[in-house]
Amino acid sequence: MLSVLEQVRSGAMSPSDAAGQLSDLPYAEVAHAVGSTLIDHHRELRTGVPELVFGAGKTPAQIAGALGELARRGGGAIATRVDPAKAEALRALVPELVVHEAARIVALGAPGTRPAAAPIAVVCAGTSDLPVAEEAALVAEFLGAPVIRISDVGVAGIHRLLARLDAIRDAAVVIAVAGMEAALPSVLGGLVDRPLIAVPTSVGYGVSLDGLVALAAMLASCALGITVVNIDNGVGAAVAAVRIARLAVGERAR
Amino acid sequence: MLSVLEQVRSGAMSPSDAAGQLSDLPYAEVAHAVGSTLIDHHRELRTGVPELVFGAGKTPAQIAGALGELARRGGGAIATRVDPAKAEALRALVPELVVHEAARIVALGAPGTRPAAAPIAVVCAGTSDLPVAEEAALVAEFLGAPVIRISDVGVAGIHRLLARLDAIRDAAVVIAVAGMEAALPSVLGGLVDRPLIAVPTSVGYGVSLDGLVALAAMLASCALGITVVNIDNGVGAAVAAVRIARLAVGERAR
Amino acid sequence: MLSVLEQVRSGAMSPSDAAGQLSDLPYAEVAHAVGSTLIDHHRELRTGVPELVFGAGKTPAQIAGALGELARRGGGAIATRVDPAKAEALRALVPELVVHEAARIVALGAPGTRPAAAPIAVVCAGTSDLPVAEEAALVAEFLGAPVIRISDVGVAGIHRLLARLDAIRDAAVVIAVAGMEAALPSVLGGLVDRPLIAVPTSVGYGVSLDGLVALAAMLASCALGITVVNIDNGVGAAVAAVRIARLAVGERAR
Amino acid sequence: MLSVLEQVRSGAMSPSDAAGQLSDLPYAEVAHAVGSTLIDHHRELRTGVPELVFGAGKTPAQIAGALGELARRGGGAIATRVDPAKAEALRALVPELVVHEAARIVALGAPGTRPAAAPIAVVCAGTSDLPVAEEAALVAEFLGAPVIRISDVGVAGIHRLLARLDAIRDAAVVIAVAGMEAALPSVLGGLVDRPLIAVPTSVGYGVSLDGLVALAAMLASCALGITVVNIDNGVGAAVAAVRIARLAVGERAR
Amino acid sequence: MLSVLEQVRSGAMSPSDAAGQLSDLPYAEVAHAVGSTLIDHHRELRTGVPELVFGAGKTPAQIAGALGELARRGGGAIATRVDPAKAEALRALVPELVVHEAARIVALGAPGTRPAAAPIAVVCAGTSDLPVAEEAALVAEFLGAPVIRISDVGVAGIHRLLARLDAIRDAAVVIAVAGMEAALPSVLGGLVDRPLIAVPTSVGYGVSLDGLVALAAMLASCALGITVVNIDNGVGAAVAAVRIARLAVGERAR
Amino acid sequence: MLSVLEQVRSGAMSPSDAAGQLSDLPYAEVAHAVGSTLIDHHRELRTGVPELVFGAGKTPAQIAGALGELARRGGGAIATRVDPAKAEALRALVPELVVHEAARIVALGAPGTRPAAAPIAVVCAGTSDLPVAEEAALVAEFLGAPVIRISDVGVAGIHRLLARLDAIRDAAVVIAVAGMEAALPSVLGGLVDRPLIAVPTSVGYGVSLDGLVALAAMLASCALGITVVNIDNGVGAAVAAVRIARLAVGERAR
Amino acid sequence: MLSVLEQVRSGAMSPSDAAGQLSDLPYAEVAHAVGSTLIDHHRELRTGVPELVFGAGKTPAQIAGALGELARRGGGAIATRVDPAKAEALRALVPELVVHEAARIVALGAPGTRPAAAPIAVVCAGTSDLPVAEEAALVAEFLGAPVIRISDVGVAGIHRLLARLDAIRDAAVVIAVAGMEAALPSVLGGLVDRPLIAVPTSVGYGVSLDGLVALAAMLASCALGITVVNIDNGVGAAVAAVRIARLAVGERAR
Amino acid sequence: MLSVLEQVRSGAMSPSDAAGQLSDLPYAEVAHAVGSTLIDHHRELRTGVPELVFGAGKTPAQIAGALGELARRGGGAIATRVDPAKAEALRALVPELVVHEAARIVALGAPGTRPAAAPIAVVCAGTSDLPVAEEAALVAEFLGAPVIRISDVGVAGIHRLLARLDAIRDAAVVIAVAGMEAALPSVLGGLVDRPLIAVPTSVGYGVSLDGLVALAAMLASCALGITVVNIDNGVGAAVAAVRIARLAVGERAR
Repeated sequence: MLSVLEQVRSGAMSPSDAAGQLSDLPYAEVAHAVGSTLIDHHRELRTGVPELVFGAGKTPAQIAGALGELARRGGGAIATRVDPAKAEALRALVPELVVHEAARIVALGAPGTRPAAAPIAVVCAGTSDLPVAEEAALVAEFLGAPVIRISDVGVAGIHRLLARLDAIRDAAVVIAVAGMEAALPSVLGGLVDRPLIAVPTSVGYGVSLDGLVALAAMLASCALGITVVNIDNGVGAAVAAVRIARLAVGERAR
Repeated sequence: MLSVLEQVRSGAMSPSDAAGQLSDLPYAEVAHAVGSTLIDHHRELRTGVPELVFGAGKTPAQIAGALGELARRGGGAIATRVDPAKAEALRALVPELVVHEAARIVALGAPGTRPAAAPIAVVCAGTSDLPVAEEAALVAEFLGAPVIRISDVGVAGIHRLLARLDAIRDAAVVIAVAGMEAALPSVLGGLVDRPLIAVPTSVGYGVSLDGLVALAAMLASCALGITVVNIDNGVGAAVAAVRIARLAVGERAR
Repeated sequence: MLSVLEQVRSGAMSPSDAAGQLSDLPYAEVAHAVGSTLIDHHRELRTGVPELVFGAGKTPAQIAGALGELARRGGGAIATRVDPAKAEALRALVPELVVHEAARIVALGAPGTRPAAAPIAVVCAGTSDLPVAEEAALVAEFLGAPVIRISDVGVAGIHRLLARLDAIRDAAVVIAVAGMEAALPSVLGGLVDRPLIAVPTSVGYGVSLDGLVALAAMLASCALGITVVNIDNGVGAAVAAVRIARLAVGERAR
Repeated sequence: MLSVLEQVRSGAMSPSDAAGQLSDLPYAEVAHAVGSTLIDHHRELRTGVPELVFGAGKTPAQIAGALGELARRGGGAIATRVDPAKAEALRALVPELVVHEAARIVALGAPGTRPAAAPIAVVCAGTSDLPVAEEAALVAEFLGAPVIRISDVGVAGIHRLLARLDAIRDAAVVIAVAGMEAALPSVLGGLVDRPLIAVPTSVGYGVSLDGLVALAAMLASCALGITVVNIDNGVGAAVAAVRIARLAVGERAR
Repeated sequence: MLSVLEQVRSGAMSPSDAAGQLSDLPYAEVAHAVGSTLIDHHRELRTGVPELVFGAGKTPAQIAGALGELARRGGGAIATRVDPAKAEALRALVPELVVHEAARIVALGAPGTRPAAAPIAVVCAGTSDLPVAEEAALVAEFLGAPVIRISDVGVAGIHRLLARLDAIRDAAVVIAVAGMEAALPSVLGGLVDRPLIAVPTSVGYGVSLDGLVALAAMLASCALGITVVNIDNGVGAAVAAVRIARLAVGERAR
Repeated sequence: MLSVLEQVRSGAMSPSDAAGQLSDLPYAEVAHAVGSTLIDHHRELRTGVPELVFGAGKTPAQIAGALGELARRGGGAIATRVDPAKAEALRALVPELVVHEAARIVALGAPGTRPAAAPIAVVCAGTSDLPVAEEAALVAEFLGAPVIRISDVGVAGIHRLLARLDAIRDAAVVIAVAGMEAALPSVLGGLVDRPLIAVPTSVGYGVSLDGLVALAAMLASCALGITVVNIDNGVGAAVAAVRIARLAVGERAR
Repeated sequence: MLSVLEQVRSGAMSPSDAAGQLSDLPYAEVAHAVGSTLIDHHRELRTGVPELVFGAGKTPAQIAGALGELARRGGGAIATRVDPAKAEALRALVPELVVHEAARIVALGAPGTRPAAAPIAVVCAGTSDLPVAEEAALVAEFLGAPVIRISDVGVAGIHRLLARLDAIRDAAVVIAVAGMEAALPSVLGGLVDRPLIAVPTSVGYGVSLDGLVALAAMLASCALGITVVNIDNGVGAAVAAVRIARLAVGERAR
Repeated sequence: MLSVLEQVRSGAMSPSDAAGQLSDLPYAEVAHAVGSTLIDHHRELRTGVPELVFGAGKTPAQIAGALGELARRGGGAIATRVDPAKAEALRALVPELVVHEAARIVALGAPGTRPAAAPIAVVCAGTSDLPVAEEAALVAEFLGAPVIRISDVGVAGIHRLLARLDAIRDAAVVIAVAGMEAALPSVLGGLVDRPLIAVPTSVGYGVSLDGLVALAAMLASCALGITVVNIDNGVGAAVAAVRIARLAVGERAR
């Protein structure tokens, strides 16, 4: 912005041309069309996190195009919510893709060097919640944070959770993944002093309402200081946790 | 019924008169109108539990009338959901009433001798849940069951619950009362082998939806074998628990 | 726990080592990983009921692994919510499996000797509700309780229900299974003095909302003492009923 | 309409004037402004039922004005949903008003001679449902139908209902009023061959959702041929029943 | 019942045997098992309408069995909610079946002579609502009522509806079928004096919520006297209408 | 913005100072704090419509302050959702206020000269919907549009609506206000070719759900081209209509 | 209508024949049955917009028939919600069809000359919202309005939106298409003075509730003057926008 | 715990006594009954945050008791959700209380020295959201974090938000408070790289559903990395933010 203003001072640019450029600037620099999708290379500068391709509802060709454009600038790229059939089709298009089946993630290129981050604990209530937990873990690792994985510690066997508390306390921030009645974050929230991000999953049936009850139970928790993301949103939890984990080691994206 | 049929055999009653009597019988014997309310004295014979007056939406005069009619036959009578103003008005009408303010219950007459029952634990998550817990405890006692009260053992301080487990295990059946995210029954359900009845309360705000989320979370619990009653329904939980507690000492109402 | 403490007294173990062991103890003894699933052999000791494999959302291989590990210790094992295709695949993996098609259950090994239990009545409103009723019945039998099956006694033909009352009263506890408007438990609740567990089913269409209305109607019942489980949750009802039925014959798991 | 067309033929009216009159005709004849309310005297001709003033949300003056205008033409007039305070204020304005307190209805003038109608049974599940049942009964009587009142026959005491079946069968059409789980119409629907109109009430708490569950349960009933009106809508049920009851004696409004 | 009582008088039966028979009587006479389904031949006597097989969720074999048993006694039999694939499979099993594809109905045998009934108008808002309307029309005809079909008279082209009013008024009772915002019954309700049964359909998308909004709009209608059935429930509307239409010609089932 | 850039060219301002000013500009010019409320005088320039004070949840003093600040610049000011008690308190503070009781609006100062606008028809289904309709009408008039008021034309008396069609067609844009089942816009939408804005009201009870059903029915309407605003949102409908009505006479705010 | 009345005056038609014709007139002239569908050729005269075939739930043959009948009179015809498989089948039936795949629209014949209209901006938040946006754009163009397309300007990159404001302001009316939290219209509503129609899409997962939250958020917007259509209803938004855009150039359909 | 184990080693305590003490330990040390409320002094050690008294549903005496007990140990104490009447009553009981009226908070004693924390920005969309924002701000300050307050920056005037971005970026963590459609966090989430906690408020009417739509919109946001708390839960947001802000300066509670 200053460079445009300098040009105005020097007479190299007229005020009205400058007015036009100033409003286009942030966008023009970074937008790069891939088919009908605009890739926002500027986003990592602005928010500390690059675009992550949301694979649901996109064709293999669209995903491949987006990953290619993102990875072209270095730092690698990942797409989430890629089911096995789509992953297969993608691998046919881009053989060097790495597929993480359980997490429904595909990755292209080596993750770039990103700001340092403190460890993140991903704590998972039941085995059916694992895909969401693993999505969170892989995204956190892609963004540069070390991850401590703790699984199958649902509250119906509270001893299992208590036995893992020290491992959980080694992390700077905790992601708790649970479906059904989602009591795990409430119990954890009374036991640890770390920021705690709860991820409800759509695991359950009948009155579980596809995860809505887990979500609401987490929000209504009697334990203060729990924050929550959308149902099955492992990606969002990871991004939030990484922002915190960077702060914990004194890093900021800008 | 047999007596009617005997009369038919002896010719003392015509078959068509008998047909009429047989359909009216169960009702005619026990119905006794108090204003527009019919008191079903037969209910205790049929279901083991007498009528309990639901005070919400009734006038003090209606409550007083129903309690008087029920107590007239012995065994005492109670009304639930009686707020302080209504209790005051009732005491003006029936000075010998006993008022249990926290539980919103009024009682008339000494509880009768009812079938023996094993102890029932009433476990309460938070202090705001106490009115519902106390309603359950008093109704259980009125029906003849000893009650063990355990309060303020919400899961956000899990140690408090673990410290009281032995006391809880002294009961034959457990009533767990909780609002907000209602995680208490899930944790308890993995720790005890007793029948466990969960009572959601309307404690909470925002996404708690006046107890609907607590209710749904209890029903969606990952711990098997929990059964649930309506929101704030301490009475229903007590009746269910007493039926079980009587079985546990070999008693049945008939 | 006492054995660890004895070792501390004898000097065979240092206090700090003991502290570590004490928190891991309940978990370490019983956990046995089968792939990513942890089998909790300790659960039957703690809650009186072994793990029952929830087959929905698990692969045939995962189910087979879990059943094998559970049955290895004796007492047999069952998995629920196994649809016909999955049952076929399972039988290919484990030929000795027994498949109960209507109930969507597969069983491995002979059920062990479990605590004695009084009879349980499973009462079913309509033929569409039979899969859920049969799931409840088979799980109750697996856990050692005799079952009395009463079918097709919906309230739109009240005579059919009244004709079966004596059979229902032979049980110590009643499971009532109904979909649509789910009026069966309300009628039953006024006729029997046994503990009554209501199971709503997802049978119905339009305003039935996949069983939510049946569930809510059961919870809102005017008959006191009915308790309710999640929609289609035959397993949960069976576990709750068995805990009660054991009490009725003076048995407890520990 | 024919008279206007005759005038056109005779030349007494031009075609364009006739066009104007024809569209205004049905409205102009009957509208008579009372303050900002238009009284539709034509409605009884068109639908067989006069306007009934819905008192909720209207001031005493507005209700008095509307009743006066309606009664002016003969046949009397009634207003519903008039709470005690409003009824008191109305009686100050119009001393000759008759107040039916339990039904929340006020009436002005003698009901006119209306078409004959067969008897209507108004069957009520619990005493808390009585205000809605009485609203239905009084409106039906105002419209000229004899009413058979059957109260306190909820399904939790099924004998009471069975004992009253013959009285119910004396009616040509049945209105069943129930709150909570609203099982009464399902049971009745399997026992009688009359048209059956179900009225859910807002009686209940917690999961009853102010009558929504009663409404949905009635609509989801397993008994065919039940039709349903809005929650607490005794008026609507009465109007529907009267239309049927008139048919049953061969009457039609036109 | 009287015959049993006569036997008691004559000494041919002991009172206690009679007591047993009396409770089994209504059921034993009419129940006839077809596989796991009980056919209630008694229902037509009791309610004026025979069992109608609900085809959804039943196998072709179950439907064929039920239809055969019902038709065996004469009077024909029909099954509803039979999709094309199931109809094909049924025709392979029972070649003499008649398939009504648009209405998703299959029929076996000639409808019996049933009580006379006045004409019923089935009025349908849009072409997408036709399957439900046709289901209602065919069931009404099966039960012996003549049907007047009026289609494509949605309120967005109000002239189409007004042009058909005389045809609609030829009926004794009107069934109005509509989806989306379901305004048809409100407009009709202000124009006719016949009993009016509204059937909401699941036609629509987005905020239509699969017919819930159409249902609620019908129940909330400003036109008095409309009654409503479950979403897409053409059968229920037909049964209700036939009961009324029989009254209109002085017929009753018993 | 250009003036700042001119200063940069002339050297009167440094580029970095300009950068600071450019981001603050739109805000700094127009913000003027009144207590904790910021009045956005710029809004009318940007959107063509000045701030309208939403009175619900504000104290009389806050409303008076906001109105005073807005009116200070000329053009008058209004506040909506002012109940009678608050209006009384306001008039004590600001005696020159004009109170429109039915519409719950208070106005200060003469409305300024605003862009010309074509007539707007405000069509109202029932008398209970009048407060919302009058709110829309008064706001439209305040913003400079002539208003045609058409009341009490609900669809249950369709003739009343048809008789007023010509008056409605005199407007360039139509606002249709209706509660309960809200069928009015569907009928109107098939009769007029003007833009049609539907306003659901919270009039109704039971299944009306405080206006949610009226809202959903309007959105699900079978008549194309209807747009909808929030429940009871007469203000929003008026602003949208005025924007359209200005276009219809060739006016734009800028 | 006048011609019929003239005939009455001249004696060429009797008054009673005229009465019959007058009620049938609007309908008889334009109805033309294509199978069971009635094509309303009159609609464009009445509302300014011809019938647009809603393809969902119709067979290819039904769609082809309706398009053929509509196009026969000139002006072309389009069908919406035609998925790729159905489009393929349609093209086999009607080879000259034009298929717009992204918008799920098929068109037959050249659009006729329709009233002039000002430009409409279709602004789209994300690439997943494009099918709905393109549906709106193509329908607007079919109805004769020029369209300005602005894509991928979601609020999470607010610069992209600000950079396109001038292009948006070139339109007379704005359609804003957004899913998920649907914040786009709120931001736009504070920046432009044009009529703004918001279209929520079903894009999103979990708590998005298939577009219900986007819909509600648009209706609850803090920016005044936004109007909203049903979820994914690009057609309805286009029709509403075209009605406005015609007004903006002084055109009306009649 | 180690001290108990040391006593066992030294023989000062028997193993079985130790077993008893070990389970009671965490609880017994810290519990101190105040009436029926248990104050958990241990909580700050465990979770870094002391008990904060939730004033809704507690009597003034209960609040005063709890505050007194908490403040007795030093560090001060606060109660939230204290409405003006309750605050008045409290001040009569405890004159030295400080009342923060806008935030509905009362405080007793000077806040203790707590761990250092980086600045927290509390960003508020509208003036009606201020009470929740101020609750968050005061609780954060009580827990030792400096707070940057940014108010009235709703998205309908996006310039106001953009002008304050630099101030927002001075914080380590951002709390965004918004009601109605709650678009603020989505816009902010694309502009800052800090952890962002969104607090929905119950501000709004009609379709806002008392804050549920704001909550859902925040959870469905297209901007990654936003986490959310319950409606109006300023306390929970503050606790979560403080945990993060402490990490940002290298502090941990233990």
